[in-house]
Amino acid sequence: MPLNNIVYFILMNTFGNLFRLTSFGESHGLGVGGVIDGFPAGVKIDFDFLQQELNRRRPGQSLLTTPRKELDKVEILSGVYNGVSTGCPIGFLVRNENQHSSDYDNIAQLFRPSHADYTYYKKYGIRDYRGGGRSSARETITRCVGGAFAKMVLRSKGIVVTAYTSQVGHLSLDRNYLEYDFSEIEKNPVRCPDAVKAEEFISLIQEVKAEGDTIGGVITCVIQGCPVGLGEPVFGKLHAALGAAMLSINAVKGFEYGSGFSGVLERGSQQNDAFVLDEQGNIRTRTNRSGGIQGGISNGEDIYFRVAFKPVATLLKEQDTVKVDGNPTTLTARGRHDACVLPRAVPIVEAMAAMTILDYILLAQSSKC
Amino acid sequence: MPLNNIVYFILMNTFGNLFRLTSFGESHGLGVGGVIDGFPAGVKIDFDFLQQELNRRRPGQSLLTTPRKELDKVEILSGVYNGVSTGCPIGFLVRNENQHSSDYDNIAQLFRPSHADYTYYKKYGIRDYRGGGRSSARETITRCVGGAFAKMVLRSKGIVVTAYTSQVGHLSLDRNYLEYDFSEIEKNPVRCPDAVKAEEFISLIQEVKAEGDTIGGVITCVIQGCPVGLGEPVFGKLHAALGAAMLSINAVKGFEYGSGFSGVLERGSQQNDAFVLDEQGNIRTRTNRSGGIQGGISNGEDIYFRVAFKPVATLLKEQDTVKVDGNPTTLTARGRHDACVLPRAVPIVEAMAAMTILDYILLAQSSKC
Amino acid sequence: MPLNNIVYFILMNTFGNLFRLTSFGESHGLGVGGVIDGFPAGVKIDFDFLQQELNRRRPGQSLLTTPRKELDKVEILSGVYNGVSTGCPIGFLVRNENQHSSDYDNIAQLFRPSHADYTYYKKYGIRDYRGGGRSSARETITRCVGGAFAKMVLRSKGIVVTAYTSQVGHLSLDRNYLEYDFSEIEKNPVRCPDAVKAEEFISLIQEVKAEGDTIGGVITCVIQGCPVGLGEPVFGKLHAALGAAMLSINAVKGFEYGSGFSGVLERGSQQNDAFVLDEQGNIRTRTNRSGGIQGGISNGEDIYFRVAFKPVATLLKEQDTVKVDGNPTTLTARGRHDACVLPRAVPIVEAMAAMTILDYILLAQSSKC
Amino acid sequence: MPLNNIVYFILMNTFGNLFRLTSFGESHGLGVGGVIDGFPAGVKIDFDFLQQELNRRRPGQSLLTTPRKELDKVEILSGVYNGVSTGCPIGFLVRNENQHSSDYDNIAQLFRPSHADYTYYKKYGIRDYRGGGRSSARETITRCVGGAFAKMVLRSKGIVVTAYTSQVGHLSLDRNYLEYDFSEIEKNPVRCPDAVKAEEFISLIQEVKAEGDTIGGVITCVIQGCPVGLGEPVFGKLHAALGAAMLSINAVKGFEYGSGFSGVLERGSQQNDAFVLDEQGNIRTRTNRSGGIQGGISNGEDIYFRVAFKPVATLLKEQDTVKVDGNPTTLTARGRHDACVLPRAVPIVEAMAAMTILDYILLAQSSKC
Repeated sequence: MPLNNIVYFILMNTFGNLFRLTSFGESHGLGVGGVIDGFPAGVKIDFDFLQQELNRRRPGQSLLTTPRKELDKVEILSGVYNGVSTGCPIGFLVRNENQHSSDYDNIAQLFRPSHADYTYYKKYGIRDYRGGGRSSARETITRCVGGAFAKMVLRSKGIVVTAYTSQVGHLSLDRNYLEYDFSEIEKNPVRCPDAVKAEEFISLIQEVKAEGDTIGGVITCVIQGCPVGLGEPVFGKLHAALGAAMLSINAVKGFEYGSGFSGVLERGSQQNDAFVLDEQGNIRTRTNRSGGIQGGISNGEDIYFRVAFKPVATLLKEQDTVKVDGNPTTLTARGRHDACVLPRAVPIVEAMAAMTILDYILLAQSSKC
Repeated sequence: MPLNNIVYFILMNTFGNLFRLTSFGESHGLGVGGVIDGFPAGVKIDFDFLQQELNRRRPGQSLLTTPRKELDKVEILSGVYNGVSTGCPIGFLVRNENQHSSDYDNIAQLFRPSHADYTYYKKYGIRDYRGGGRSSARETITRCVGGAFAKMVLRSKGIVVTAYTSQVGHLSLDRNYLEYDFSEIEKNPVRCPDAVKAEEFISLIQEVKAEGDTIGGVITCVIQGCPVGLGEPVFGKLHAALGAAMLSINAVKGFEYGSGFSGVLERGSQQNDAFVLDEQGNIRTRTNRSGGIQGGISNGEDIYFRVAFKPVATLLKEQDTVKVDGNPTTLTARGRHDACVLPRAVPIVEAMAAMTILDYILLAQSSKC
Repeated sequence: MPLNNIVYFILMNTFGNLFRLTSFGESHGLGVGGVIDGFPAGVKIDFDFLQQELNRRRPGQSLLTTPRKELDKVEILSGVYNGVSTGCPIGFLVRNENQHSSDYDNIAQLFRPSHADYTYYKKYGIRDYRGGGRSSARETITRCVGGAFAKMVLRSKGIVVTAYTSQVGHLSLDRNYLEYDFSEIEKNPVRCPDAVKAEEFISLIQEVKAEGDTIGGVITCVIQGCPVGLGEPVFGKLHAALGAAMLSINAVKGFEYGSGFSGVLERGSQQNDAFVLDEQGNIRTRTNRSGGIQGGISNGEDIYFRVAFKPVATLLKEQDTVKVDGNPTTLTARGRHDACVLPRAVPIVEAMAAMTILDYILLAQSSKC
Repeated sequence: MPLNNIVYFILMNTFGNLFRLTSFGESHGLGVGGVIDGFPAGVKIDFDFLQQELNRRRPGQSLLTTPRKELDKVEILSGVYNGVSTGCPIGFLVRNENQHSSDYDNIAQLFRPSHADYTYYKKYGIRDYRGGGRSSARETITRCVGGAFAKMVLRSKGIVVTAYTSQVGHLSLDRNYLEYDFSEIEKNPVRCPDAVKAEEFISLIQEVKAEGDTIGGVITCVIQGCPVGLGEPVFGKLHAALGAAMLSINAVKGFEYGSGFSGVLERGSQQNDAFVLDEQGNIRTRTNRSGGIQGGISNGEDIYFRVAFKPVATLLKEQDTVKVDGNPTTLTARGRHDACVLPRAVPIVEAMAAMTILDYILLAQSSKC
């Protein structure tokens, strides 16, 4: 097994084909940042919106999230002149602040269960225990920056990306996304469009937190206004790209679109979407079990999918583990951690979806000959 | 919405980073084929195994599958000399036979519900109605060829990829993969390691078929013997690559690895995998809810995941749809079709997993400096 | 130096970003072929033109070239339906014929000087001595196929790619390309637009051939009708892409565009191209020492460049070399070989230029937002 | 011609396959910077060497170069912990200083001849006249940073990259690189290993400068210690990659390796490199007209190539041009500019060569199976 005892390194910190985010940075270094490539020239940059998107991801925004206060001010280093994009790559930097490295002293010599500590150490031969280093959730700041830029272009095309928490533990929403008022989502800290369910979700998270435990859930994402024709039919199916984007987010364990896993319970005659003409004479589908994508290509209906997040791995309860030297030990985490990652993951899901859709729009445009 | 009324083309018929499959071909053209790039020099090619892998995918192999008889003989065009790989790209071709284009006459002027007909037509401005053209299942032949080559390398490293049908409609296996004897899988036509359940699956498929309807299900895949250290931590997480590979297969609607969607029902204290020492003094995890991947990098435990397939879209029942000119009509399909795609999809899932793992082995090797 | 004693393999048999050629095949295997990806849908395929482009590259077309007769009939395997491109990948195959493997018996156990024999053997650990295997000039057939398809799109946009032999040994054309009638080029076997010089070139090649020796030269290529705006300013400059394309052709040793190496002999005040208005009021340059590209981006003027080809490495004269086992020996080649590669390289240069320009057109189109 | 009147944007600010530099930044924005991806873990970072490499590129270092004083202090933002690389991407930033935007007031409304002004404006629809924006030479700072990191790995493998000025205008070195003492190069401001010729080069540059004119030249680069086996045989030939890297540098008009353009003047029998055994019994070539690369793959001999740089486009003499509105005008540049770019381009050539070689080492390593 020649792969076991050598030092590797990270490849591929770039996401996207024609619209690209290249990111860098660790939780306890100087900061995180990146380069956005392929952003169109001539777009007026909405700096308030950009910062607001980062704030949605930020810790300390409510009682539900970790009390770490991080300002996460983004500095745009290039590619914008007089408030308008120039077509050049957009460099950006978000400096780290409020680092409590001492919070991590008790984990310096052991591997935290279900974290990336062990695999990173085996792969790179180096132990950077300060908050997870590159595997830290701070890496997702760069995704939110990239997503905010992508959204600026998408909204000019009438494309809207909306995500929300649809399940926490065993509690889940029971209605189709069409029945919700999306403007409710940001009104509660758990980011759920159903105010009553939101209260239940919050109670459950607080109960779990009080036990020193953690809990997972599901985020639903809806993309509205997408044109027909995005997607590459074979290996680059639109849902394959969306799936890879979602599965690249920390703690994600599953992805399904349209009727997903539950669709296998029905017959073809129940699952197929009949084609019909709408009142404007356009071809539409009567139902949308396909989730807006057929044969890997968007069909003009709403795209929707669900993303499963596991419970946060850092517990305030005692767990068995081993030290770096292999000896058994136990760990009871200290520090400031989320009991449930979902509220803060909602903007990250949106960001990855927005970047993927913009990338596929550029791919589709390349072929107009 | 400028994307609605123009002619696009297909991009990206290449899969993989360093081990790559580039494919071509339609269901009713001369054939399907491809180019395998990045295959190591000096590997003895097992032609019998290669053909056997194609046979597992072939229609007409049992009563459960479409009675179309396709021989699917693969012709290797380059890259092999005296039975050994030379390091050059491996070109291959599988000629089409047994084409009943007349089977498709009744669909020439309409869009089949939940097929790729409509989106292809809107994207490319061309209607090739013969068996779905590029969106046909015959495209997956090239995946099986690529997968067979990848498996030849993987087995020399002790890595084994095994997939099986674990759910058909509402019927599902109730045990962990570790409790099954994988040598049972190929003994029944539905490719299920539980002989009793296999009978139930078969009965259900036949019942659905008799109704002119179709049914979906779930395939489970297990990768054993994978070394620690495969995977790129941020955007190129190993499970993101596996997910994209699976979601690129026709009819796939969902992907989950490790405890997946069901893991969100439990607390972190129930889901975390404690680190322990095994009898040889190696660091292992006591449980494997992580599915062999932590932080996007393989940890040496078994990798396992589940893939949801929707019911086949072609029904022998009447369905509403529209003609190419937009007028409403109905369709009752004729021709020879599978009522359930799962038995033939098992080798395709294995092939995509094998190609992904080999690609990531090459990526990992590039970094030994 | 760990790279010295191991077996590698070939990566990257794919050329292009959005318009892509993936090629396979060896000189003495079943054939050569490839996959063209990214070709627009709806283009009427000109099969006569395609075959004619292959014929221009074919050996045996005149007394100047090797007398090997190869028919090089191309078989289109996919992506074309009723004579029109469908947007799907275009697979193609050109079967090998007229193989005289015995011609190569005397080189089986030695390394031919200035061929790829030695480096391939060290890299792949395998010796396929039959005509150079993958390093054979037959690989360029696939480039001509890709180029012919690219030209079909370019000519619909008014873009014309023309190459010709401008130097053989010490003899060279002394006039600017604008002074020649390009319709003369195909009228002589050395593909030179100056009929008088062509005779001199031919005499020199025949003289060298009679001595059992070989000779190199320079091909000039002109791209007319290219729009402003092709090229990526930093790493993907248009001339960098053209240069890489040319340098990937066997036997090429140098590339220069615009005033190239000779431009360094002049001052900036002599080299700069003043901007002027033409009669239609368009901004043009008074001179074109920039070669149609400024800052890596096409400026609408003619693009022109020169490509240096070394003398063919296979001589009918005795040369010193070593055997595979390291012992000294001598080689006097037999077989049928070109004394000068330039006449047959002209269509290859055009093909690589055409594919590069089409790829950059697609890249430019992707950014219309 | 639909490409003429629309707004495009920049793609592809990433260089490399497995070792990658992604860059951003403009001359008169906040700064320039980038992300280095694929750098091995566990390498001790030599910060002094890094800064020294930047200093070699810096303006103001001698009377020959522009008197602009730029400190060009590099700030490493990530990927290094306790002075050792972690395997994570290395973000870096060099802030801009000493910007005299008023120097550019007289060019705000016109296109400078043989600059990128016109093509950028047509491509992006935006005019950022401050020092060329993204097309400014400050972009090359990021190349020097990437090159310095690459050199740290290369020197641990015994690979040394050396460039020098070998021609200025009509004056050129007349000896082979093997006859020079490379330690002389940094002893004179023109970076020439021949002290006598250096004086002549310097006199010529000063004379040209006094006239308000500019001059070009040639840089020779030598790579010593490279192992056999780097390079991909078909499209990714090692010299094609080196050529693309060099041609991506501002002002480069030509590239040749080995005997290059002059090799076409000789016969095959004069150009071929005979294989011989050296005293250690290793296979070597008696001569090295191949320039260390055969069939696109390194053969273990020294790699050498020449790069032509045109005269700097900014003159202090009057030139004809047009305004942005199309009206004729004249330009006499002001500001602080180099009369000859070569002295400062030497480290840039080395940097691009070093990054290319490291990338190809990683590619070669990926294939050890």
